[in-house]
Amino acid sequence: MLISESVLRSFTQNIFLSMGCSDEHAALASDVLLKADLRGIDSHGVARLIGYVRLWENKRINACPNITIVHETPTTATVDGDAGLGLVVAPFAMRLAIQKAEQYGSGWVSVRNSNHFGIAGYHTIMAVEKDMIGFAMTNASPLVAPTFSNERLLGTNPMCYAFPAGKYPPVIIDMATSAAANGKLEIAQRLGKQVPEGWIQDKEGNFTTDPHALKSGGSLLPLGSDREHGSHKGFGLSATVDILSAVLSGANYGPWVPPFVAFLEPPADPVGLGIGHFVGAMRVDGFRPVGEFKSHLDNWITRFKSASTVYPDQKVIIPGEPEMEAEAQRIKNGIPLVDAVVKDLNGLAEKFGINPL
Amino acid sequence: MLISESVLRSFTQNIFLSMGCSDEHAALASDVLLKADLRGIDSHGVARLIGYVRLWENKRINACPNITIVHETPTTATVDGDAGLGLVVAPFAMRLAIQKAEQYGSGWVSVRNSNHFGIAGYHTIMAVEKDMIGFAMTNASPLVAPTFSNERLLGTNPMCYAFPAGKYPPVIIDMATSAAANGKLEIAQRLGKQVPEGWIQDKEGNFTTDPHALKSGGSLLPLGSDREHGSHKGFGLSATVDILSAVLSGANYGPWVPPFVAFLEPPADPVGLGIGHFVGAMRVDGFRPVGEFKSHLDNWITRFKSASTVYPDQKVIIPGEPEMEAEAQRIKNGIPLVDAVVKDLNGLAEKFGINPL
Repeated sequence: MLISESVLRSFTQNIFLSMGCSDEHAALASDVLLKADLRGIDSHGVARLIGYVRLWENKRINACPNITIVHETPTTATVDGDAGLGLVVAPFAMRLAIQKAEQYGSGWVSVRNSNHFGIAGYHTIMAVEKDMIGFAMTNASPLVAPTFSNERLLGTNPMCYAFPAGKYPPVIIDMATSAAANGKLEIAQRLGKQVPEGWIQDKEGNFTTDPHALKSGGSLLPLGSDREHGSHKGFGLSATVDILSAVLSGANYGPWVPPFVAFLEPPADPVGLGIGHFVGAMRVDGFRPVGEFKSHLDNWITRFKSASTVYPDQKVIIPGEPEMEAEAQRIKNGIPLVDAVVKDLNGLAEKFGINPL
Repeated sequence: MLISESVLRSFTQNIFLSMGCSDEHAALASDVLLKADLRGIDSHGVARLIGYVRLWENKRINACPNITIVHETPTTATVDGDAGLGLVVAPFAMRLAIQKAEQYGSGWVSVRNSNHFGIAGYHTIMAVEKDMIGFAMTNASPLVAPTFSNERLLGTNPMCYAFPAGKYPPVIIDMATSAAANGKLEIAQRLGKQVPEGWIQDKEGNFTTDPHALKSGGSLLPLGSDREHGSHKGFGLSATVDILSAVLSGANYGPWVPPFVAFLEPPADPVGLGIGHFVGAMRVDGFRPVGEFKSHLDNWITRFKSASTVYPDQKVIIPGEPEMEAEAQRIKNGIPLVDAVVKDLNGLAEKFGINPL
């Protein structure tokens, strides 16, 4: 089913309004979800709307948060999201980082007491639009085992770096720090397909290609897959995200991160509040004139796009470019939704007494 | 051969003094190299001294640089290293970042016109000693191909994040963004051993286990090894390092980065000056009280150290812990040097008319 951006956007806003979100928050949260769908990151868009609603029903998401700055210096701050949607808490934090960068060159905000913040790319693009370099990361429900362990202690903990270019779209590196994102596993489960070796291990710590292994005590592997191929680096990156997002802000970290799904209870012995994010912005002209930077980044992109390739039909992909192409295409032609998602969304419409899709 | 830290340190200082470095620069450059040897990162210590000397002989390293700040805001700056040793230029940049962080909460410095800066960990530890979070990265000679390419366009571009803990040593994540560091390949070459699949490809872009493939047009692979296992993420991280270190500062980037070895000429069409680094520091108490942060990071470490493991004799390794253990042991027992390195060092002693080891 192909659905136009504007129809899906107002449907999504109506759901958030029905939860009791303010007009402003409903519009912002919808914008974050729609951005994922437009950019082709279907796992992080409206497919997750039902997840947010269930957490709200379980009183684990506060639809009317009083988001506050609990600590700050000229260029750093800690924000408490008051258990609000990460979809509104993270943009609040990024706006603060951008304000600090406007005044002092850079701004850095660690966030506690939040929830899932959608795609990291959304938040970094806010900085890029101001000719700044954007950083965003978040911790997440524990699914990933550190190197040498068979215990789920870390989330897929994405990190994102974004840079404004000149004639090209911005370079946006937005990546889970696990070998494979959980969304890819879900697709394999749905299709009944095996996954490549190196994505997951079973509960004893053996590599397995069964995408259902995660449900029986298995775990995702860090980027690098095993020690020989650098999984300690993926573990280190994931640890960096966890520490900057949660140990620094006062959120839950490691195995204490509350699960995103409502049917699993959060740990009974929390070490902080909610989940954590970390965002930052640096003015490009804090280092060199914007025009110079952009023309050199354009030159960088041109060189990499023209690299000699292994297969004639597969060019080097500049990070962020496929998503930008998807966005242009989906704005024009609409957003494809699979039946299961449409069914979930129309179930929500019925629950709240609003028009179905 | 086991050699005491103090003997190796004064030997190394004498070499730098013979090159014409000031007392202060000779002591600092030696401290950076010795730190690598003490921490067990033998590839980045005095084994590289001969490489620095040869570049100096070729007039590609300036022993008496006038390091300057060419652009700045309260929390950002660009530094020109005047073609000096990265071993002194990067600490200059990190001191500046720390000063800015002391005043404004955070400080970020991009560096151009520099050379190899030793281990990234050295520079981040400078921040950690001030109860700050340290960041350091550098670009390097092109050896790594981006995903889908068989062309060497990126260095092993390391990134390092460091966090001060309480009762434990600091957490220091210091990693090449390639699947394997070049040093590991050199060891396999020396021993005549094959390397695992996923580290390198031949000039056509096929996986190979021949460690000499790099000499015949092959390339290192990004962290993740292939697309299916996330090599586009390793490519993205390496790109991030290249852009922050060089596109932002005005250094050479991508395939234009000058080679570290003196027998290869730098590209005839440079796009900037020398190689680039990026360093940063953030005050922990810019986010939450230092004591709180450290006690939670200790709790994080304790939890990960006690994780259930796949093999009974292999615990989860906290990043930075093995290096700290090596340092304690080598300070006590001395630094092991292989014969080839001793021979190189004594060759330098003869060249400069100083006492051999």
